[in-house]
Amino acid sequence: MSKKVVTFGEIMLRLTPPELKRIVQTDRFNVIYGGGEANVSVSLANYGLDAYFASKVPENPVGQAALNDLRRYGVNTDYIARGGDRLGIYYCENGASQRPSNVVYDRAYSAIAEASADDFNWDEIFADAEWFHTTGITPALSENMSEITLQAVKAAKEHGVKVSCDLNYRAKLWTKERAGQVMSKVMEYVDVCIANEEDAEMVFGIKSGSDITGGDINVDGFKDVAQQLIDRFDLELVGSHLRISHSASDNDWLVVLYDGSEFVKSNQYSIHIVDRVGGGDSFAGGLIYSRLTGKSLQESAEFGAAASCLKQSIPGDFNQVSVQEVESLAGGNASGRVKR
Amino acid sequence: MSKKVVTFGEIMLRLTPPELKRIVQTDRFNVIYGGGEANVSVSLANYGLDAYFASKVPENPVGQAALNDLRRYGVNTDYIARGGDRLGIYYCENGASQRPSNVVYDRAYSAIAEASADDFNWDEIFADAEWFHTTGITPALSENMSEITLQAVKAAKEHGVKVSCDLNYRAKLWTKERAGQVMSKVMEYVDVCIANEEDAEMVFGIKSGSDITGGDINVDGFKDVAQQLIDRFDLELVGSHLRISHSASDNDWLVVLYDGSEFVKSNQYSIHIVDRVGGGDSFAGGLIYSRLTGKSLQESAEFGAAASCLKQSIPGDFNQVSVQEVESLAGGNASGRVKR
Amino acid sequence: MSKKVVTFGEIMLRLTPPELKRIVQTDRFNVIYGGGEANVSVSLANYGLDAYFASKVPENPVGQAALNDLRRYGVNTDYIARGGDRLGIYYCENGASQRPSNVVYDRAYSAIAEASADDFNWDEIFADAEWFHTTGITPALSENMSEITLQAVKAAKEHGVKVSCDLNYRAKLWTKERAGQVMSKVMEYVDVCIANEEDAEMVFGIKSGSDITGGDINVDGFKDVAQQLIDRFDLELVGSHLRISHSASDNDWLVVLYDGSEFVKSNQYSIHIVDRVGGGDSFAGGLIYSRLTGKSLQESAEFGAAASCLKQSIPGDFNQVSVQEVESLAGGNASGRVKR
Amino acid sequence: MSKKVVTFGEIMLRLTPPELKRIVQTDRFNVIYGGGEANVSVSLANYGLDAYFASKVPENPVGQAALNDLRRYGVNTDYIARGGDRLGIYYCENGASQRPSNVVYDRAYSAIAEASADDFNWDEIFADAEWFHTTGITPALSENMSEITLQAVKAAKEHGVKVSCDLNYRAKLWTKERAGQVMSKVMEYVDVCIANEEDAEMVFGIKSGSDITGGDINVDGFKDVAQQLIDRFDLELVGSHLRISHSASDNDWLVVLYDGSEFVKSNQYSIHIVDRVGGGDSFAGGLIYSRLTGKSLQESAEFGAAASCLKQSIPGDFNQVSVQEVESLAGGNASGRVKR
Amino acid sequence: MSKKVVTFGEIMLRLTPPELKRIVQTDRFNVIYGGGEANVSVSLANYGLDAYFASKVPENPVGQAALNDLRRYGVNTDYIARGGDRLGIYYCENGASQRPSNVVYDRAYSAIAEASADDFNWDEIFADAEWFHTTGITPALSENMSEITLQAVKAAKEHGVKVSCDLNYRAKLWTKERAGQVMSKVMEYVDVCIANEEDAEMVFGIKSGSDITGGDINVDGFKDVAQQLIDRFDLELVGSHLRISHSASDNDWLVVLYDGSEFVKSNQYSIHIVDRVGGGDSFAGGLIYSRLTGKSLQESAEFGAAASCLKQSIPGDFNQVSVQEVESLAGGNASGRVKR
Amino acid sequence: MSKKVVTFGEIMLRLTPPELKRIVQTDRFNVIYGGGEANVSVSLANYGLDAYFASKVPENPVGQAALNDLRRYGVNTDYIARGGDRLGIYYCENGASQRPSNVVYDRAYSAIAEASADDFNWDEIFADAEWFHTTGITPALSENMSEITLQAVKAAKEHGVKVSCDLNYRAKLWTKERAGQVMSKVMEYVDVCIANEEDAEMVFGIKSGSDITGGDINVDGFKDVAQQLIDRFDLELVGSHLRISHSASDNDWLVVLYDGSEFVKSNQYSIHIVDRVGGGDSFAGGLIYSRLTGKSLQESAEFGAAASCLKQSIPGDFNQVSVQEVESLAGGNASGRVKR
Repeated sequence: MSKKVVTFGEIMLRLTPPELKRIVQTDRFNVIYGGGEANVSVSLANYGLDAYFASKVPENPVGQAALNDLRRYGVNTDYIARGGDRLGIYYCENGASQRPSNVVYDRAYSAIAEASADDFNWDEIFADAEWFHTTGITPALSENMSEITLQAVKAAKEHGVKVSCDLNYRAKLWTKERAGQVMSKVMEYVDVCIANEEDAEMVFGIKSGSDITGGDINVDGFKDVAQQLIDRFDLELVGSHLRISHSASDNDWLVVLYDGSEFVKSNQYSIHIVDRVGGGDSFAGGLIYSRLTGKSLQESAEFGAAASCLKQSIPGDFNQVSVQEVESLAGGNASGRVKR
Repeated sequence: MSKKVVTFGEIMLRLTPPELKRIVQTDRFNVIYGGGEANVSVSLANYGLDAYFASKVPENPVGQAALNDLRRYGVNTDYIARGGDRLGIYYCENGASQRPSNVVYDRAYSAIAEASADDFNWDEIFADAEWFHTTGITPALSENMSEITLQAVKAAKEHGVKVSCDLNYRAKLWTKERAGQVMSKVMEYVDVCIANEEDAEMVFGIKSGSDITGGDINVDGFKDVAQQLIDRFDLELVGSHLRISHSASDNDWLVVLYDGSEFVKSNQYSIHIVDRVGGGDSFAGGLIYSRLTGKSLQESAEFGAAASCLKQSIPGDFNQVSVQEVESLAGGNASGRVKR
Repeated sequence: MSKKVVTFGEIMLRLTPPELKRIVQTDRFNVIYGGGEANVSVSLANYGLDAYFASKVPENPVGQAALNDLRRYGVNTDYIARGGDRLGIYYCENGASQRPSNVVYDRAYSAIAEASADDFNWDEIFADAEWFHTTGITPALSENMSEITLQAVKAAKEHGVKVSCDLNYRAKLWTKERAGQVMSKVMEYVDVCIANEEDAEMVFGIKSGSDITGGDINVDGFKDVAQQLIDRFDLELVGSHLRISHSASDNDWLVVLYDGSEFVKSNQYSIHIVDRVGGGDSFAGGLIYSRLTGKSLQESAEFGAAASCLKQSIPGDFNQVSVQEVESLAGGNASGRVKR
Repeated sequence: MSKKVVTFGEIMLRLTPPELKRIVQTDRFNVIYGGGEANVSVSLANYGLDAYFASKVPENPVGQAALNDLRRYGVNTDYIARGGDRLGIYYCENGASQRPSNVVYDRAYSAIAEASADDFNWDEIFADAEWFHTTGITPALSENMSEITLQAVKAAKEHGVKVSCDLNYRAKLWTKERAGQVMSKVMEYVDVCIANEEDAEMVFGIKSGSDITGGDINVDGFKDVAQQLIDRFDLELVGSHLRISHSASDNDWLVVLYDGSEFVKSNQYSIHIVDRVGGGDSFAGGLIYSRLTGKSLQESAEFGAAASCLKQSIPGDFNQVSVQEVESLAGGNASGRVKR
Repeated sequence: MSKKVVTFGEIMLRLTPPELKRIVQTDRFNVIYGGGEANVSVSLANYGLDAYFASKVPENPVGQAALNDLRRYGVNTDYIARGGDRLGIYYCENGASQRPSNVVYDRAYSAIAEASADDFNWDEIFADAEWFHTTGITPALSENMSEITLQAVKAAKEHGVKVSCDLNYRAKLWTKERAGQVMSKVMEYVDVCIANEEDAEMVFGIKSGSDITGGDINVDGFKDVAQQLIDRFDLELVGSHLRISHSASDNDWLVVLYDGSEFVKSNQYSIHIVDRVGGGDSFAGGLIYSRLTGKSLQESAEFGAAASCLKQSIPGDFNQVSVQEVESLAGGNASGRVKR
Repeated sequence: MSKKVVTFGEIMLRLTPPELKRIVQTDRFNVIYGGGEANVSVSLANYGLDAYFASKVPENPVGQAALNDLRRYGVNTDYIARGGDRLGIYYCENGASQRPSNVVYDRAYSAIAEASADDFNWDEIFADAEWFHTTGITPALSENMSEITLQAVKAAKEHGVKVSCDLNYRAKLWTKERAGQVMSKVMEYVDVCIANEEDAEMVFGIKSGSDITGGDINVDGFKDVAQQLIDRFDLELVGSHLRISHSASDNDWLVVLYDGSEFVKSNQYSIHIVDRVGGGDSFAGGLIYSRLTGKSLQESAEFGAAASCLKQSIPGDFNQVSVQEVESLAGGNASGRVKR
């Protein structure tokens, strides 16, 4: 299976204290490389696809280490430009029980945020590609990146590449207004949209009745949001993961998909969280794989849900699971019995 | 907010095997400095109060490291005398599931247990102070310390300082008889008493109907105990935390307060335990902060409960949380969602 | 209590990534020495019995380290032959939530698999012994070992030693057919048999109605299996642990015993898993201890269940608990409260 | 000894791979907080002086952790402003043998680089102070900081505070031209200057004959440089450390001082390097302590050399030694025999 | 620079106790993937060549992790067959002072030792290749591998690919007799031979006067050996590294080259050993790079010596250095000064 | 070789910061069990002797872990009494370069210091024993232990057991006067005495001309001291190790023996120190083994010197080497070349 899939965005250095410590307590950080789009790319490589990650990292050992980590897990790094001043960083305290995970971003002025249009040759990048994925974080990184992202999705369309986008609204990166303006243009070229209700409301003002902090999730309310997105942007599919946070240690998790006619929801998992970062990204990865391999809508939901459920039992940003492992869980084997 | 609060007692070296190992398995110990009274002092410093810890530690690198750890977290160490032979130690195996945590004390002959009256200048210590806190462990350390603790609470009263005491009965340190004799004198100067039902019965023979090992807690029975304590010692407030141990990994937790007229109980939390040590101390810290900042009785219970709930999600003895984090949980946000 | 108990089988090097990592992510392995029969031997030593482990390990530092670890926990290693090429290895990823533990065996050509009959002097080994324990893994290691195991159980019988055997069918080591042939001969000399329903079906074709992957356990169905085993092999006792895997993190656990007339089941425990490896072995250890010390059938079940419940809260293969700790849990104290 | 000494500059997060690994190999970083000026401040606190560090760190857990580390080692942090976006970072691979240590800076846009004049109340800061120390790094951080540093040294002079400055030229922070312009103004207020020959040449164009890479050091050539600095800036003392790098593991080390009339050099140490970072800063700390306590010029050189020799045997940026330990080495006890 | 270079051989899992512990002391192993030929391949990738590694690893997570580690450092793994039972292992205690490093091999029955001829398509592998490198270990792994290695060197010649071979005699893998027979055939196709004097004597009975254990090295004696090799096998170049072991911590190191007319020796380095494994392999890597990029014989010796000197300052088997770093040392900058 | 050798003394918990950190910097301690006499016992077990350690450790997990560590390395623990309050502790900062190792003792009130005569049945202990070893630390622990040690050496003599004693004067445990009184009585029963010149002078006032801190060692002056000891106590052999401390990282080391007629000194080793603790004890172990196996005086010196040289390359208190490894070094192979 050599389908070429390109993902575009940022890879960062994540620094996490071990043993559930807080930042003020630790004298060591675990070193993790990841980021919304990079995480999707590793998922796809693990599934056997020909995964390319397009980005920019600095020409220093930290940038090299980020690139190496992608290579290690099978991602093709030929489209990663080198240069700029720094790799973006985020500090992440893993939460537990009633104590939430806590993220401190230090990502400004990163190589990718300061990339220029000529760092990326979209004609080369999209040659023979079948799918392009990016997120709402990528254009939010800088005005330059807004422009470059728009160039990317346009070029993808011109090359007949399917385009998916995870809205992933980040209030610390841009305002709702700028997000709305830019993402409205980006969405013109998108086929498959991943969007939480929060995202849809923040970016496009599209509302539904779900109350996330209350621990109760309005699964069906998602259908309205998805219908509105489809109506507005002529999408072929909208997907979302739904997280019910009982605590930082225990979450329920399911995914929903809507293609304008059929609405499906996946099995709901009770997850004992090891590392929640990358949960949404691994759903995106599972969904892209499912669509590329011709799974039905229900199968796609189950594969995406199982993939992202497993991710949250694995330390780090990347989802280190195979198609076989995901399908085993999607097929109902959730007992966690030893494989020997 | 520069209210001066003085805490008096012991700081010890805690040695805990990593990765939930037992002592006979480990070739490393995590190094933690803490102790009932020191833990309260760090909580108060984290809340922005002017927290002083009065104690004695040896003039060697181990004593210095204990003192440094208090300084690190903002506690003023000007009233820590230096000298004596050793820092007290406790080995603590963190429990899990049906395996209880296991504590081995090696605290005899410590610098603080062998302190003398002239190690502490109470007039200087209580100048401009608003609150004094100690526990039943402090006078239990030695006959000397019984005498010094009594001097301390007397001096506090003379300086118009509010006095709180957590009974914290330790059968390994003294008999019920000696505890009863000494604590009866100490309690004459106490305004706010923290007491489990066990403590009240062991120290003062005051009984209630709660059966702790059974996993069932008699919340209302606490009111009787508190009333008896108030009647006997003319207290303005009695507080207690109640722990329902389903296992070493999962506890329910709430706190109750009674001021002689109003009886309040806090929200009850289901806690996934990371480190249960210091749970009671962080309730004391939360309660002192609440009273000093004019919170209502119900607010005080909620703040104290949330503070001590959060503590148990954090490794070590100290409660590394801010007022804002406690108030967020006390205000109902227990979902543990990522803050980013 | 100086009852001599001999266990016979393999000790391996287990390599487990720390922090719940997967093998592809880790740059460190925790080093654990263990194996089904060795684990039983350590349990028995911890209970104060005179535990001997008969095996063979290579004459190199890795073999020495395995032997040392047994010695460290009080097992007598006088009957461990030295020689051969290698110590067997198994890689074990500890699972979490919906992600199962994953075991990769690398045990072929080990010193014990290639042992010869003259590595073991059974007359010396069984002198003054009261109990002999082995498992279905031992004869499965090689044709040689099938023969040697048969010699061992015969010799045990001749010396009037009680014999127990845990069927422990391993499909990667031998076929059902060969297992059936060899184990049928071994069972002629066995008094106490430990067998999951899977084992009984795989090895002897004895079936019951329990569906293990479904998370639902047919406790009573076990009685039929046990009766059939007793009828066929003239056993005095059959025991089994039953595991209900809700996830890799949360299991229910109980044990059942049947002696041909009385059928007992133990208290059922909800376990938060720290390390599930050695759960069954610690049940075997608890059962052997119970029978040797004259416990009733119900007491034996409770002791065996509590022992194996505690094991799963402890990292590594070995069960690091004392008789007193097991009896405290068996007596109903499952709250996991701190012992201080 | 309660002499108030103020140091002004940056504290950064240093990330160093453990076990002498390179950045591309590591999945953990040791967390160290330090920086040229902060390191001096910790030295002074360890010597019992009343050490204040003036700086700015962000109002987030990373900034808090840096501040806490200073507090831990006894530095007064009252003059550390809070705010800004980030704490500066530097990655540091510790070298070994022929492999040099490798530093990657990521310090742009730090809180201190973007500080404003009103973050520092110099009148309050210099009240009762006896010494002020800064380095050439501080004004190099930004144009703002050039201005603020100039304000600082002026204010120090106005308050009658002795001023020392370590030239510490950093080519990555500014050009020789800008360094020369700014430092010429700063030096008007400086009494004690620390300067390598490289620094003197880069910043002021003052040359001498020493060839640093050649492993041969022109000790006496330093006197010419020092005389030129004294002539130009009316200094009372010029000091320098001299490092002869045989390899990243083995260095020779000595210090020289010149006050315009007397020229002294210290004992020369053969150092087996544990962590060379902070070597120069610990010399500065030792020199300031020596001058404040009335040591002779030769004694000052010996104390400064011994202090900085010891530093390089200690992991991290900070010099964790007492006056007694430095004096023991300065007094000739270099045999490293156990103290027991 | 896209020169394709193929290396053929084994990659193993190396397990090394941290902190210089012995195997019997450790409860952790550092996980390192490496092996003589894999190490060369990583060196070449680091130098920017198009490095391919041909081998076979098992289709399990351990084999995957080995493959991933090669990918991580830029090696193309397209020619690594998957299958077989196990990855070879070697345990390695790093030595110190008078205690030698100690290696325990557990490499029998590995996937590569049991590979078959059809695992490797030499026509595809050598298409567009410029250089092929293997060692005397590769044919020693099994009779199959003797045959396959011979096929490989023949095919290389047929494709006009330059062939280098490091004799690397391993007495534990085969006898001198079999080594002599097989290697004599292999050498018919070799252009560049790397050989210690020991190797030359053991494999081909070619002797010289150097006494290795005595700490004294007969540099010039190597020329005789090289001449004999050239005479016998019509080689274009013979190279060797010479190690003078003062202790496990301190070695002198140089390399010599002889092309039949010119004899050169490199600068001699005094190395403080961090990890000596891979020293010879990194010389091979440096030599191949030098020859491919047209360096003179003396330059090649200096580059090879500097590369292998740096390797021994880096933990693990792989040489994590760039061309620039090697050239800096080869150019005489051995002082190990910080790069900032 | 089943010669029974009994050692008598203390085993302690040693807490050492990893990575050469100081105590005030560390948040982890490496856990090491050891002590002068226990260290000798482990050496003897490693050499294949039937090594018994007589002592007393508390009946808690810490005491158990100490006992287990002895068992792990083959020491028979049948004569270790259980009881008392605590295991003695010592904190040990490993030194480096000019920074000395730093030991903080916390050993008062240990189980062994408070042992009583009936904890040891000397008739049973010395049955069939060939050698008894103790040190001057054992009687120094308490007045009780002075008495018990005297009983031990008397009983040894009565059973015809050879007695060795290492003077090991510890100024923190007793005065010169008490040491002199007690050790004079003990020495009446000693055959082989190990004594540094410091020890001989401190305990018995016997002087020689060696100046230890000066880095220069008066080897021959030792002969005078030894002669005086022999004259006074009718000894058959006196031995001493001589350490020349160039720094905490680099020492020279040799041993000398004198039997009243023949004086021998060993090869002198330049040691790169990994852990110097236990250097002297491993000399004692090597010497006892040498005498028991009939080595000549010169051979004994070489074996003792090589054993103790190797010890200092190994982390921890115990000397983890075999007879073969010691003899290889004693035979002149000090090059530290890899064994493979």
